[in-house]
Amino acid sequence: MPDDTAWTLHPDRALPADPTLRPIAHEIFAAARDLPIVSMHGHIDVAALAADSPFPDPAQLLVVPDHYLTRMLVSQGATLPELGVGPDSPDKETDPRAIWRRFCAGWKHFRGTPTRYWLEHELVEIFGVTRRPSAETADLIYDEVAERLADPAFRPRALLDRFGIEVIATTDPAWSDLSAHAKLAIEVTGPGGAPRVLPTFRPDPLLHLDRPRWREDVSRLAAASGLDVTDYATYLEALRERRAAFRAAGALATDHGHLLADTTPLPDDVARALVGKALAGEAVTAAEATAFSAHMLFQMAAMSAQDGLVMQLHPGVLRDHDGAVAERFGPDKGYDIPVVTEYAQALRPVLEAFGHHEVFRMIAFTVDEDAFSRELAPLAGVYPALRLGAPWWFLDAPDAMRRFREAVTETAGFSNMSGFVDDTRAFCSIPARHDLARRVDAGYLARLVAEHRLDLDEAVETAADLAYHLPKAAYASR
Amino acid sequence: MPDDTAWTLHPDRALPADPTLRPIAHEIFAAARDLPIVSMHGHIDVAALAADSPFPDPAQLLVVPDHYLTRMLVSQGATLPELGVGPDSPDKETDPRAIWRRFCAGWKHFRGTPTRYWLEHELVEIFGVTRRPSAETADLIYDEVAERLADPAFRPRALLDRFGIEVIATTDPAWSDLSAHAKLAIEVTGPGGAPRVLPTFRPDPLLHLDRPRWREDVSRLAAASGLDVTDYATYLEALRERRAAFRAAGALATDHGHLLADTTPLPDDVARALVGKALAGEAVTAAEATAFSAHMLFQMAAMSAQDGLVMQLHPGVLRDHDGAVAERFGPDKGYDIPVVTEYAQALRPVLEAFGHHEVFRMIAFTVDEDAFSRELAPLAGVYPALRLGAPWWFLDAPDAMRRFREAVTETAGFSNMSGFVDDTRAFCSIPARHDLARRVDAGYLARLVAEHRLDLDEAVETAADLAYHLPKAAYASR
Amino acid sequence: MPDDTAWTLHPDRALPADPTLRPIAHEIFAAARDLPIVSMHGHIDVAALAADSPFPDPAQLLVVPDHYLTRMLVSQGATLPELGVGPDSPDKETDPRAIWRRFCAGWKHFRGTPTRYWLEHELVEIFGVTRRPSAETADLIYDEVAERLADPAFRPRALLDRFGIEVIATTDPAWSDLSAHAKLAIEVTGPGGAPRVLPTFRPDPLLHLDRPRWREDVSRLAAASGLDVTDYATYLEALRERRAAFRAAGALATDHGHLLADTTPLPDDVARALVGKALAGEAVTAAEATAFSAHMLFQMAAMSAQDGLVMQLHPGVLRDHDGAVAERFGPDKGYDIPVVTEYAQALRPVLEAFGHHEVFRMIAFTVDEDAFSRELAPLAGVYPALRLGAPWWFLDAPDAMRRFREAVTETAGFSNMSGFVDDTRAFCSIPARHDLARRVDAGYLARLVAEHRLDLDEAVETAADLAYHLPKAAYASR
Repeated sequence: MPDDTAWTLHPDRALPADPTLRPIAHEIFAAARDLPIVSMHGHIDVAALAADSPFPDPAQLLVVPDHYLTRMLVSQGATLPELGVGPDSPDKETDPRAIWRRFCAGWKHFRGTPTRYWLEHELVEIFGVTRRPSAETADLIYDEVAERLADPAFRPRALLDRFGIEVIATTDPAWSDLSAHAKLAIEVTGPGGAPRVLPTFRPDPLLHLDRPRWREDVSRLAAASGLDVTDYATYLEALRERRAAFRAAGALATDHGHLLADTTPLPDDVARALVGKALAGEAVTAAEATAFSAHMLFQMAAMSAQDGLVMQLHPGVLRDHDGAVAERFGPDKGYDIPVVTEYAQALRPVLEAFGHHEVFRMIAFTVDEDAFSRELAPLAGVYPALRLGAPWWFLDAPDAMRRFREAVTETAGFSNMSGFVDDTRAFCSIPARHDLARRVDAGYLARLVAEHRLDLDEAVETAADLAYHLPKAAYASR
Repeated sequence: MPDDTAWTLHPDRALPADPTLRPIAHEIFAAARDLPIVSMHGHIDVAALAADSPFPDPAQLLVVPDHYLTRMLVSQGATLPELGVGPDSPDKETDPRAIWRRFCAGWKHFRGTPTRYWLEHELVEIFGVTRRPSAETADLIYDEVAERLADPAFRPRALLDRFGIEVIATTDPAWSDLSAHAKLAIEVTGPGGAPRVLPTFRPDPLLHLDRPRWREDVSRLAAASGLDVTDYATYLEALRERRAAFRAAGALATDHGHLLADTTPLPDDVARALVGKALAGEAVTAAEATAFSAHMLFQMAAMSAQDGLVMQLHPGVLRDHDGAVAERFGPDKGYDIPVVTEYAQALRPVLEAFGHHEVFRMIAFTVDEDAFSRELAPLAGVYPALRLGAPWWFLDAPDAMRRFREAVTETAGFSNMSGFVDDTRAFCSIPARHDLARRVDAGYLARLVAEHRLDLDEAVETAADLAYHLPKAAYASR
Repeated sequence: MPDDTAWTLHPDRALPADPTLRPIAHEIFAAARDLPIVSMHGHIDVAALAADSPFPDPAQLLVVPDHYLTRMLVSQGATLPELGVGPDSPDKETDPRAIWRRFCAGWKHFRGTPTRYWLEHELVEIFGVTRRPSAETADLIYDEVAERLADPAFRPRALLDRFGIEVIATTDPAWSDLSAHAKLAIEVTGPGGAPRVLPTFRPDPLLHLDRPRWREDVSRLAAASGLDVTDYATYLEALRERRAAFRAAGALATDHGHLLADTTPLPDDVARALVGKALAGEAVTAAEATAFSAHMLFQMAAMSAQDGLVMQLHPGVLRDHDGAVAERFGPDKGYDIPVVTEYAQALRPVLEAFGHHEVFRMIAFTVDEDAFSRELAPLAGVYPALRLGAPWWFLDAPDAMRRFREAVTETAGFSNMSGFVDDTRAFCSIPARHDLARRVDAGYLARLVAEHRLDLDEAVETAADLAYHLPKAAYASR
C-alpha cells in the first residue's frame, strides 16, 4: 500500500476469497451483520461504564491494557515498562505519546494476527483514521484519536449505544459489592428498563486453598455476604448467598478459570477437613488444593442446578508462566500459556449428576484445540446441559474460528453452540470482534451451501442464530 | 428453500465449490462413483438379512437404531424413551409416527452434520422423498417411506443388490453360531458363488477379565467351541478354535475395541494366573484387567500371524460415559466419548514382533485426530504390516475425512490406507456413506491435481484404489 | 499423463488453485523465489563437500541415503537390503541399477507425498529428466542421471553455487575435529571471504548417561577438547571448550534432539554425583538419565546465554521404534516415530531464566502439530528469546506447512519465526525444499491479502522475510 493510499475497510474483508463462495457469504453475512451485540463474557471495566468518564488517551485506551498487544511487542524486544505497563518505576514510560509511537513503529509485527485486524477496524471505523500506523504516521494518528476521545460521543455509554450492544456482562469477584452494576441497572437500560450491563460471578480465588491470599479473600467473602465463615458449611453458605446477590443484580452466569477441568467431588468430611485446615492457616498440599478445587466445581454445578446461573468453565491455561514477571507486574500480562486439557473424564462427574438436569447448564471453553473434535463436540452432542463456548483467547481469530466450526459442527451441529463471546478487556474491540466472528461464520456457512450440504435459507437462519439467538438462549435459564 | 421447491440431490454435492477444482473433482469422482461397495466393517443386523423380512416402519428403520441421530435429539431435550429407545416403560413412545414427527421437527438440529447429509441422500435417492423434513411435512414423508417399505423391492436383500454391495462384513461375538452366515453363504452370493455377507470375529468381552459377565461369556465361548475352558491354555485354545470357525465361515478379519491401544504382552505365568483367578471367580483388579487386555491384543496379533485374519483395532473410546444411562438403556446409545489415544508406544510390542511378518496385517483406527499426523501416518509409512483405517465414527464426515487425507497422505501416501469403512448400524445409510467418502476423496485429489502435485491420470487411478482396490487388498490375506 | 507427454514442472505448482488467489500468490512468490538459500539446519555430508568428489551413482545419490524414500518402499514390502541399505550381507543389493529400478517401479506409492514433489523437482530441474519414473522408464532415467553425474558441473561445490546456497550449516558431533570445515572455510566462501559451510554443535549422546557408549563418547570429547574429563566440572568444561571451538569454526548454533523438551535443572550436587557414577561405570537408572538430560538442556541454555550460540531444540521423536531394525541397520533408517510433546511446563525453567536474556536465543521445533497453536505460538508470542522453527521432518510438506502457518501466525505473527530449514540428508533436495516452502508461504499470504487481512505490499515484504531475512536474523547472535 503506497503511503498516500487511504486506509479503508473492505466491505468483504474476512469473507472467503473464492469467487463461488464470496457472493453467498455476502448474502449470509447480511443476515447477521446488523444484529445487536450480545456480549455475555468479557472483562471490561464496569467502574468506567458507571462513571462514564472519557477515556484518557490513545495509549491508555488501546495499548496499555491490551495484553494481546503488549505481549507481541515484548516478544520483539520491548519491555513492559516501556509500554506503560506495571507499577511505577524509573524505567516506566509515562508519556502516552511515546508509548503510542512504540506501538505504531511495531505495527509490522502484528501482521496476520487478529489484533491487527481488530485494531484496523477500530481505528478506521470508530476513530476515522485513514493512515496505516507506522513510525512516520504515529503522531498524526495519535492526534486524531485523542481529538475524538475528547468528544462526548466517545464516552463509554455513548459507545455502548453506537456499538449496538444490547447486553454486556462483566466479570466480577465473588465479594464485589455490585454497586456499579446497581447504578447501571438504573441508568443504562434497554427496552422496558431491562438491565444492559450484567455482573458475572467469578469465585476462582476462593476455590483454591493454596493461594497465599486465600484467607484474606475468604474474609472479603464473609464481609460481602454478611456471614461468618468459620467452617466448610458457612463457606458454602456464603458462596450461595453471594450467588443470590449476583442473581438479584442481574447475573446470568458464573465463570470458572481452573487449570484442570476436573469436577470430581470429594467426600463431604474430606472437604470439611480441608477447609478447616485452610481456615486455621495450616498448610494445604498442592494435591489437596487441586482435589478441592475440582470438588468445588462440582459444588458450583450443584448450586447452578438450584439457582439457574449458567456455569462457564474455562480450563487449561497455565497462568503466570514467568514467575518473575508475575511478581513484578501482576497477572494478565500476556504470560498465560495453554496446556493439554482433558474433558471426557474430567467433566464426567458433573455430567453424570446434572447433564440431563432440567435447570443446569454448562458452557465449556478450551484453548486446547485438540479437544474440539475429540471430546467437546461429542459431549455437547449428547448431553442437553452442555453447550460449547466460542473459540476463546488465542483461538478468537479468523483461521482458528474456522477450524472450530469445521471441528465441532459435524458432531455437535449448531444448536449446541453458545455463540460468540468476546472475552475482551479492550472496550473498543467489541464490535470488531463480533463483526469478525459473524464474517467467519458466514464464510463457513457459505461453503456448506456451495457444497450443497445446506440450503441457503438454512444458512441465513443459522447465521442469525449464531450471532444473536443462540447466545441469548444459552445464557437464559433453562 | 421455499416449501414448494422439490428436494433434490445436487450431482456435485460435497465436491469442492472452487471453480477450478470442481470440474477436475467431477472427472475424478466419475472413476469411483459406480464401483461396487466393499463394506468390510459395519454393524448391520445379519439376522435381518438372513430372514429378508421387510423393514418394520420408517421410525424403526431410520430413527430408533441410529445413535448418531438419537443423541443429537437428546442433546436438544428429547429423551431416549420419547424416541422409542430402550426397554419397555410407561414413558416409552410406541407409536412410530410420533417418533417420526419428533425427528422431523428436529431436522434443523442436524444442519452441518453427516447425519443430515446421509439422511437427505437416503430419503431422496432410496425413498423418492421430495420434501424437506419438518413438523409440517412429517406425516407426508412417513406415508411415502412406509409405502415403499411395503414393496418387496425394499427388502434387505433387494437393497443389497440395488446398493451395489459386492461384499459386506458384519461384526459378531466370538460365540456366534454363525448360522445366519451359513444360510447367507448359500442364498446370497456373488459371481462363482462367492459369499457376500461375511462375519467378523469380535472377542472384546472375553478379553476383559473385570467385566461382570466375563465368566458367563467364557461359558458361551466354551459351548460354541466345544472345548472345556478350565485354564489359560484352554481359554486360548477355545479362542483359536472360534477364529478357525469364523475363517471357515468366510471371515477375513477380527475387530478389537479396547480403550487403550496397548499391546504389551505379560509373562505367560502372569497371564495364566490372572485367567485362573478370573475363572475361579476371584477379584481381578482394574490394573490387572487392563494389563491382561493389552496382553490379549498381543496374543490376537500372534494368532493373526498364524491364521491370516486381518486385525482391526479401534481404540480410544470411553464407553457409556453416563453410567445411569448405560444401566437403563444399555450400550451404544450415543454416550461413548473419544479420549486421548497413544499409539507409538502402545503398538510397539506388536509391530516389533509382527510388523514385518509375511502374514500379519493390522488396520488401525482412531477417533483422536491428533494421532493421524503425529503417530499413525509415520507408523503406517514404514511398517509393512500396518494399514490405516478410514476416519471413523465421529470423524466419518466431510470435513473430518478431508482433514484425515491432509494429515496422513504426505507421510503415508495412499498405498498404506485400507479404504473407506462405513461402520454403520443403519443399513440404508451404506450407499450414502460410501458415496460421500468417494466425493471427499475426489475433492482432495482434485486439489492435488490443480496444484500440480499429482497428474490427472494418477488421481483417477487413486480414486478407484481408495474406493475399491485398497479395501479389497487390505482385507485379503497377505 | 500419457507416456509420450514430456514431464515438466508447472510454474505455478504448489500455489493455490483458486483463481482469485493464484495471481496474488504468483506475485508474492516472485519476491521470494530467487532469494539466496539460507540453510541453517541440515545433515549433508561435510566430507563430500570438502573432497568435492563426484556423486557415485543415481541410487547412491537419491535412494539409499534418503530414509523418507526407503521407508515408504519398505512399507510396501521392500526390504532395506534390497534397497542397498545397511551392512554387507548376502541379501544386500549391490547393483545400483537394480536399486534404481525398484524405486522407479514403486513411484506410485509416493503420490501425495513431499518426497514425490521434491524428486520430481530434482529430476526435471537439476537432471533434465523428461519421463515419469516407472518400471518401464527406470533404465533410461538411470542413464540420464548417471551421465549428468559424470559432468564436473554436478560436483557438490558446483551445485552449491547452482542452487544459490549462500550459507549452509551441517550437524556435527561435539568431538568433531572440524577439519573439513576448516578446509571449506578457505576454499568455499562468500563475499569478503565469509564462510559458507558452517558446523553445528550437536552434543546429544554426551547428555544421556544411560547410552551404552556414553563413556566412550566422553573419551572422544576429552580427546577433542584436550581436557581430562574426570568429574562433572571437567565434563562441563570440555563441553564449553568444544562450543568455543565450534564458534571459532563459524558455528552459529547448537542442536538438541531429546525425547522430551524438559529443561528442569537438578541441584548441582545431584548432577555431580550422577556424572561421577556414570564415569565410574556404575549403573544410572533411566529416570536419573532422563532427569540429567533435562538438566543438561538447562546447562546448554546457560552456555548459550554466555557464548551466543543459538539453541535449537527438536524434541518429541521416539527413535528406533523397531529394536531389531536398529540393531541390524543402525539409526536413521525411517523407524523414528513422533510422540506427544509437552512444551509449556518443559521449557519453563529455561524461559524463566533466559527468556528475556539479551544474548540467549532458542529455536523450538516440533513434530507434534498439536503444540503449535496450544503452546508454541503462545510462548513465542511473548518471550523475546524464543523463535519457532519451521515445520520439520514429517511436517515439511505442503499441507502441513500450510497448517503450521494457520496455527501459529494468529498468535505469534511472522516476526517470531525462524524461517525455513530443510533438515535434509539429500543434498539435491535442498533447492526443491526451499522452493516449495516459499510457494506454500506465498499461497498462505495470498489468502490473507485476498481476504483483506493483509495489504499486498506487506505480503510481499513478509515473503522475503520468511525466505531470507528471518533465518539470517534468527541464527545471528542477538
